[in-house]
Amino acid sequence: MKSGEAVWRTVLALRAESPLVHNIVNFVAMDLAANVLLAVGASPVMAHAREEVADMVAIAGALTVNIGTLDPAWVEAMHLAIDRARKLDKPWILDPVGAGATPYRNEVLKALVKKKPAVVRGNGSEILALMGKSAARGVDSANASVEALDAARDLARKTGGVVAVTGAVDYVTDGTQLAAVDNGHALMGRVTATGCALTALVGACVAVTGEAFEGTLHALAIYGVAGELAARDADGPGSFRVRFLDRLAGLDKAGLVGRLRLQ
Amino acid sequence: MKSGEAVWRTVLALRAESPLVHNIVNFVAMDLAANVLLAVGASPVMAHAREEVADMVAIAGALTVNIGTLDPAWVEAMHLAIDRARKLDKPWILDPVGAGATPYRNEVLKALVKKKPAVVRGNGSEILALMGKSAARGVDSANASVEALDAARDLARKTGGVVAVTGAVDYVTDGTQLAAVDNGHALMGRVTATGCALTALVGACVAVTGEAFEGTLHALAIYGVAGELAARDADGPGSFRVRFLDRLAGLDKAGLVGRLRLQ
Amino acid sequence: MKSGEAVWRTVLALRAESPLVHNIVNFVAMDLAANVLLAVGASPVMAHAREEVADMVAIAGALTVNIGTLDPAWVEAMHLAIDRARKLDKPWILDPVGAGATPYRNEVLKALVKKKPAVVRGNGSEILALMGKSAARGVDSANASVEALDAARDLARKTGGVVAVTGAVDYVTDGTQLAAVDNGHALMGRVTATGCALTALVGACVAVTGEAFEGTLHALAIYGVAGELAARDADGPGSFRVRFLDRLAGLDKAGLVGRLRLQ
Repeated sequence: MKSGEAVWRTVLALRAESPLVHNIVNFVAMDLAANVLLAVGASPVMAHAREEVADMVAIAGALTVNIGTLDPAWVEAMHLAIDRARKLDKPWILDPVGAGATPYRNEVLKALVKKKPAVVRGNGSEILALMGKSAARGVDSANASVEALDAARDLARKTGGVVAVTGAVDYVTDGTQLAAVDNGHALMGRVTATGCALTALVGACVAVTGEAFEGTLHALAIYGVAGELAARDADGPGSFRVRFLDRLAGLDKAGLVGRLRLQ
Repeated sequence: MKSGEAVWRTVLALRAESPLVHNIVNFVAMDLAANVLLAVGASPVMAHAREEVADMVAIAGALTVNIGTLDPAWVEAMHLAIDRARKLDKPWILDPVGAGATPYRNEVLKALVKKKPAVVRGNGSEILALMGKSAARGVDSANASVEALDAARDLARKTGGVVAVTGAVDYVTDGTQLAAVDNGHALMGRVTATGCALTALVGACVAVTGEAFEGTLHALAIYGVAGELAARDADGPGSFRVRFLDRLAGLDKAGLVGRLRLQ
Repeated sequence: MKSGEAVWRTVLALRAESPLVHNIVNFVAMDLAANVLLAVGASPVMAHAREEVADMVAIAGALTVNIGTLDPAWVEAMHLAIDRARKLDKPWILDPVGAGATPYRNEVLKALVKKKPAVVRGNGSEILALMGKSAARGVDSANASVEALDAARDLARKTGGVVAVTGAVDYVTDGTQLAAVDNGHALMGRVTATGCALTALVGACVAVTGEAFEGTLHALAIYGVAGELAARDADGPGSFRVRFLDRLAGLDKAGLVGRLRLQ
């Protein structure tokens, strides 16, 4: 599961199966999240109407819920979609954007976490805030991922699922097991919505592997390696974003396995 | 009308007249649709408030309605805008994103189709679904465009307008006439919202030609050739999207006429 | 304040202080506005829920309000955020997208202008429309910035703040002082949301300089120089957008000071 071979099999599965991922995601991230999913071979769908989210989730392989630009109507739709996903035993992934930034965000997250996401994917500040241990400043992290490791373990035990805390090094835990991915590049933090789009990819990988820990780990690995490859010939955040999508789409086995730093 | 010369005249008209196109379009596609319109020389405006859509349509050359991330408030605005467009004899174009994916989408589309769009532009699965002949899987097509040819003809007869079904080959029909554009590139399907942005371009071309069949055909031709040109030096979906906008803006007569495969 | 040295100090302050900028901004512009802020070193946050805007503004260095894709719920949130910003003496910046295009926009703007924005940033047509002197056609300007100079001065006197009118030449006035920036490139008008993203940058620069006139002038200067640099090796609007973000992030003192044309 932690081998480059296993990650590569997930890349191939994404391309072969083209999982449909239903995303209820913020306005800033919609474009990048859709393009990341298309680049790896998955099929994105964005839908937020209370009138249709339960039907959309029923045809999808996974649901991702991102609270970035939340408001009450969207939160209601999130709950309808999640309830349906749980009923159908489909994995749902939570991205707690800006956790800790406002009381409203915290209150909404409290109710969402109770619905036991298969995976929570956030930055250090967000995972700390979810465990009541930090007040985020906006949506960018003020904490290194490693600072949130204990909080991640506690959160995983609380939800019974997997928690990924991402940063310079990415960690995945289910409360017992721990894995780390030491790939990626600092330019990823200079492009908006790279965290949100990663959450969408987690949805796709969990859909094809059928397993939350492994799927999450593989998503982080694929994303990190593509980021490293993209940074090699980027002149800044604009060209990085472009090459990142190219690299995600063009990933080959040698490039992936040779660069992967999984522990 | 089917000659390269005629298509080139439409390119020049877009640049000279800079038609204002009012788009009620999904959140994922707003950026690309606006950039495609600006690239060809048109002027995009996005507005969805029930308080202003009727006024906005009154100053625009065409209205495009795209149901991608629909909800009831937006659907209400769509109807207000369409009703005004019809009253003022302005063309309105329908993009039935995800037709067939949920009962809500189908119900909304049923009411929209009754308002006789000048053009419907969709992929194979969407056009089939509009005629009750397929259940789409999300928003990406599971059917080749040619499979939807009969459905397209039937739909055109039903609306009294034009139907474009796009894919590897694009078709345009008014129920009697049929034309095909065999340009484009597979990378277009790996970038989100390329179909939606094409619908916005159809709006611009119908506005400057004053004719639904010709305007639609020319939009498909311009888009397909720019896509082919862009693919020649793209390394993947990221760089394709960048070069595609460059090629749309920089199209010259020789490059267009020499590559066009219209029938 | 008008020297290249002073502008460069603002660039360094953006990178060192990473000001949090709260943007209530239209759907089309969210991606570019966030990426422009990240490129210069600032930290963007987008939030529009009435339940949280007042709390978000309280942790931000500046608030920007852009009416691009407005509707009544968003307008209500704008007022809540603005009221809190004023109470806390935080600067708020208004981008009157499409002023004059519809009666609804004009009515909304009338109420917003009364709340005395620290800065208004618009194109020629928008600033003229705000003073009742023009009817805009959509969201692209039909007037050169210089035509709106008197209107800009009058508007600045009315609000007691600063007004920037941007175009081929950009002007900043507080009703008495006047400064001009003669940088930038025509390609900026061929990429959607470049005006809106500039308004976000004005917010960041006003936050770090603590001064509306200087902050606005420096934002225009940084943006214009980065635009010129980007245009040198762009093949069209697609590649321009990419290089523009690269140049904003990579701006160095010599490149900035040598190119600046401030008066």
